[in-house]
Amino acid sequence: MPNAYDLVIIRHGQSEANKLNIFTGWRDSPLSEVGIAEARAAGKLMRKDGFAFDIAFTSLQSRAIKTLWLALEEMDQMWIPVTKDWHLNERHYGALQGKDKVQAVEKFGEAQVHQWRRGYATQPPLVERNDPDFPGNDVRYRNVPAGELPRGESLKDVSARVLPYWEREIVPLLRAKKKVLIAAHGNSLRALLKHLEGLSEPEIEGINLPTGVPKVYKLNDRMLSAETHFHGDPEEIKARIQSVAHQTKKA
Amino acid sequence: MPNAYDLVIIRHGQSEANKLNIFTGWRDSPLSEVGIAEARAAGKLMRKDGFAFDIAFTSLQSRAIKTLWLALEEMDQMWIPVTKDWHLNERHYGALQGKDKVQAVEKFGEAQVHQWRRGYATQPPLVERNDPDFPGNDVRYRNVPAGELPRGESLKDVSARVLPYWEREIVPLLRAKKKVLIAAHGNSLRALLKHLEGLSEPEIEGINLPTGVPKVYKLNDRMLSAETHFHGDPEEIKARIQSVAHQTKKA
Repeated sequence: MPNAYDLVIIRHGQSEANKLNIFTGWRDSPLSEVGIAEARAAGKLMRKDGFAFDIAFTSLQSRAIKTLWLALEEMDQMWIPVTKDWHLNERHYGALQGKDKVQAVEKFGEAQVHQWRRGYATQPPLVERNDPDFPGNDVRYRNVPAGELPRGESLKDVSARVLPYWEREIVPLLRAKKKVLIAAHGNSLRALLKHLEGLSEPEIEGINLPTGVPKVYKLNDRMLSAETHFHGDPEEIKARIQSVAHQTKKA
Repeated sequence: MPNAYDLVIIRHGQSEANKLNIFTGWRDSPLSEVGIAEARAAGKLMRKDGFAFDIAFTSLQSRAIKTLWLALEEMDQMWIPVTKDWHLNERHYGALQGKDKVQAVEKFGEAQVHQWRRGYATQPPLVERNDPDFPGNDVRYRNVPAGELPRGESLKDVSARVLPYWEREIVPLLRAKKKVLIAAHGNSLRALLKHLEGLSEPEIEGINLPTGVPKVYKLNDRMLSAETHFHGDPEEIKARIQSVAHQTKKA
């Protein structure tokens, strides 16, 4: 039923940093070979099932942009308009960026790292403005006022930038009956998902989004989820969700 | 001198249809393996030489979009805004679309085919509105009034859509000191080149743009060419220009 949806969200495929189990955040890590295959497979599946979009949104980060491009190419919809915006970027992981997740557990303890990863309002250690990880030092954010750019974010902070952007830029298109695809990141999409599905803070803490799997929403007239499902093979989706949940486990 | 330019134009790399020597026009033909390599090489070269863009423009056709995407990926500038617009599409080749160039010469004679290919104001045989080659039957043009869509174009017709778009959408950005990249097609770029370089109709008839080679413009305050050159190895550029010129020659 290609017409029975309004919105599809997709988390980027595996990145090189995901593969190395590193806190990536706003650092720019390309898709791994696996991630490229995930994005292409998602596009092929959406094409087979007749998905068609009027417009797509993504972040300013290569792994989400590339996921979108590969999916659009497989769908033969390269020509649709694409808006890229920093408000859809991954959570900024502050001073944890570039750190190995297992090493972080060894250094700070599993409880602290779990709290940083999943505590709704817990900020990581922040970076200073002269740190290379402060986005004000990256040319791609040169048009954003430095005061709006994060030095480290909780999921709550991410929601505080994603949701106003959602309301301002995307909701009007959905109300105009445009079919929208968003290719973004684990945490920018969890912030949106929490809002759309009306989840509590403890509920969203337990949610892991699988990489490269389209999540289809039918929205009601308040622009909240009336129905949602992952589109794809249930067993494979389950495996991918578990692989994200296990990232802080030692090998 | 990365700051000594305002505009770079690039013709898409070789498409599958180019390889088969077919009049493609508005038909959508993907890049060939050679075309993919050409686009990547152009991106690598621009990166090495410090090119940086604020915004890019392309057509609604996959071969130009893909050329742009590959070049931006190689330049690590995937995050810049990209505007796609049908005004930058290839010349519509009317009823010649899908025809082999050598067969066309055999059927209509070399003089007629040369006139269709290079005569500034010569339209090809037009398609009817119920023809699959009429763009009004392609979903990607559904928001364009059918009366604006071509049934077959001369280079003069192409100029009549490219130049107003150039003045309206691109010139204001250049005046605002934005660095602009345009990835488009042999004929939409020839129309622009004729304008920028002040060429006569006979002069533009003799010009072939090589595939996948950045052409750099320094513009004056009337937004016309003050200086221009192809960026790359002179011998390779010469070889690519000749390969385009020879497309109607029998093997």
